[in-house]
Amino acid sequence: MTQHRIAVIAGDGIGKEVVPEGLRALDAAARKFGIDLRFDEFDFASCDYYAKHGQMMPDDWKDRIGGHDAIFFGAVGWPDTVPDHVSLWGSLLKFRREFDQYVNLRPCRLMPGVPSPLANRKPGDIDFYVVRENTEGEYSSVGGRMYEGTEREIVFQESVFSRKGVDRILKFAFDLAQRRPKKHLTSATKSNGISITMPYWDERVEAMAKSYPDVHWDKFHIDILTAHFVRHPDRFDVVVASNLFGDILSDLGPACTGTIAIAPSANINPERLYPSLFEPVHGSAPDIAGKGIANPIGQIWCGAMMLEHLGYAEAGAAVLAAIEKVLAAGPGHAPLTPDMGGKASTQDLGKAIADAL
Amino acid sequence: MTQHRIAVIAGDGIGKEVVPEGLRALDAAARKFGIDLRFDEFDFASCDYYAKHGQMMPDDWKDRIGGHDAIFFGAVGWPDTVPDHVSLWGSLLKFRREFDQYVNLRPCRLMPGVPSPLANRKPGDIDFYVVRENTEGEYSSVGGRMYEGTEREIVFQESVFSRKGVDRILKFAFDLAQRRPKKHLTSATKSNGISITMPYWDERVEAMAKSYPDVHWDKFHIDILTAHFVRHPDRFDVVVASNLFGDILSDLGPACTGTIAIAPSANINPERLYPSLFEPVHGSAPDIAGKGIANPIGQIWCGAMMLEHLGYAEAGAAVLAAIEKVLAAGPGHAPLTPDMGGKASTQDLGKAIADAL
Ligand SMILES: CC(C)[C@H](C(=O)O)[C@@H](O)C(=O)O
Ligand SMILES: CC(C)[C@H](C(=O)O)[C@@H](O)C(=O)O
Repeated sequence: MTQHRIAVIAGDGIGKEVVPEGLRALDAAARKFGIDLRFDEFDFASCDYYAKHGQMMPDDWKDRIGGHDAIFFGAVGWPDTVPDHVSLWGSLLKFRREFDQYVNLRPCRLMPGVPSPLANRKPGDIDFYVVRENTEGEYSSVGGRMYEGTEREIVFQESVFSRKGVDRILKFAFDLAQRRPKKHLTSATKSNGISITMPYWDERVEAMAKSYPDVHWDKFHIDILTAHFVRHPDRFDVVVASNLFGDILSDLGPACTGTIAIAPSANINPERLYPSLFEPVHGSAPDIAGKGIANPIGQIWCGAMMLEHLGYAEAGAAVLAAIEKVLAAGPGHAPLTPDMGGKASTQDLGKAIADAL
Repeated sequence: MTQHRIAVIAGDGIGKEVVPEGLRALDAAARKFGIDLRFDEFDFASCDYYAKHGQMMPDDWKDRIGGHDAIFFGAVGWPDTVPDHVSLWGSLLKFRREFDQYVNLRPCRLMPGVPSPLANRKPGDIDFYVVRENTEGEYSSVGGRMYEGTEREIVFQESVFSRKGVDRILKFAFDLAQRRPKKHLTSATKSNGISITMPYWDERVEAMAKSYPDVHWDKFHIDILTAHFVRHPDRFDVVVASNLFGDILSDLGPACTGTIAIAPSANINPERLYPSLFEPVHGSAPDIAGKGIANPIGQIWCGAMMLEHLGYAEAGAAVLAAIEKVLAAGPGHAPLTPDMGGKASTQDLGKAIADAL
């Protein structure tokens, strides 16, 4: 039996509360399917670590987790003590870049028992993936200020789109669309306003589409695309987007399905040269941290995606099924956390899901 | 009686169908309130003009409309013949910049009789403004390509935020918030990911807020903010955003209220050194152009905003009330266009609103 080494990083805030529940579900799945997972916990990539060491991670962070098979990540950020751009660029965004996790994959699915803010939608109606570019684009660290502190102050930041960076994310997205029954891909653009990089993105989509004659594709400007997410979420299958647009769409999609607190994401290096990282879409949520009421489902769903990534599709599906089973019982029956209208604790809900396994 | 000279530019597609209905309502309001409006129609800023002249506008466009009191604009763009970034940067975006219309003001309001895609919301629940920066930010024309056509190809585009540009839009938004009963301002940011320009935006918001101690303000990253638009649209009052974020939020907001086809926008030069421009949020809609079924309400609502801008608040309110009256009659009674579930033509709906005045 191969042992899989998982680096566990709880991070900040509710990350510390939901990660143990994710591990509980993973343990249950590992037992049931006979999978050998070894968990190594790390305290860095957190604002607590920063408070002690003046940096988010030790200098040798890459050596310490670079050899693991995956990273199981909670959340990072505690703006009261460390500005977000410092904590994020010093940890999560470093992982994404230095481990070349160029795919950020985020499912949007209407789940049973979860009230959607949209009228007249039911489970099965909405089921798509956002495929987000995760290493370049609008998230660059190139730029700066001139005439600082004066009336003439002016601030620049560069967006950077490389052929390699664009093509590889498009290829991943077209491959995924090709494997799905609907074989439909939607590209997010804004080439009418962002007139240099976005027309380039469109060009590369058109070029890549030629290799996938069986995939139907369309494109929408990001403004109207957000409108379509609200009005016609049933029309999407695979949505591919730049770093910033993907960031927006992968919060908006789960918001439309009512699942923002429970949505997972996978930061993937498809070539497996580096560990991939699995983290819920939600953040560290300082407002509810420490109360034991955070919803652990996003973290548990991350475990499902991680199992799939490690080659255990059946185990991953079982974890997802356990989540759905508990949710389907509905308010009054399932131990739901307050964000879902229940009174249960993080642990109650985590245990119920592990038990359902 | 002062005469107000209005430059009328119908543009492309459904612009040509809805602008006459906007003028019909303006005529009715002018008669009723004794306002002297003179309409001068121009055929430029359209793809038809481009087909004849190889450019979107004549060289002396600024002389021809720069002396008018306002521009009443339909829609521009016909991607089959002219790429969007060419048609837009050659017309609409030129107006915004060269007439220094640095405020793009867009109301989001749940209207009677308009079905919202959101569950359990009623008129009055949602009523806020998006105040969008309209001249700089992510919409720059600075950037370019290197290693073109090769595997190493790389494309850059600069975002540019100036102290002057940021402060003046923030001032407009805080002033507006201060005049409204709720006195609440929300700033859209992404300072955790867009780590150079967006922290600067946040700094300026914080500095500006000091001059408005009676305005409550908060800020959200754009990803979660789009989620809040769907989940808690009732919480907003004035939302201020950069050019790109404002573009997104001002499509998403109307989508949440079901009014994307009927939402107006005002491109304002508050100092009145140049004409302001009033245009619906929707575009030229090639898919339905020429059929006479486009919804004219966005254009008519623009007329209401223009009247208010010209100093006729009462007349503007009367136009809006006429729209609400017709909408409130509801499907089956009001002559609604197909996008609203009716069978009426653009003209039928336009006439009904003019009559209601
Ligand atoms: C057509 C396009 C360039 C424009 C914009 O992005 O500003 C439009 O979407 C708008 O919102 O007015
Ligand atoms: C925390 C932040 C930098 C991050 C991002 O924008 O990528 C988050 O919003 C996400 O979506 O993972």
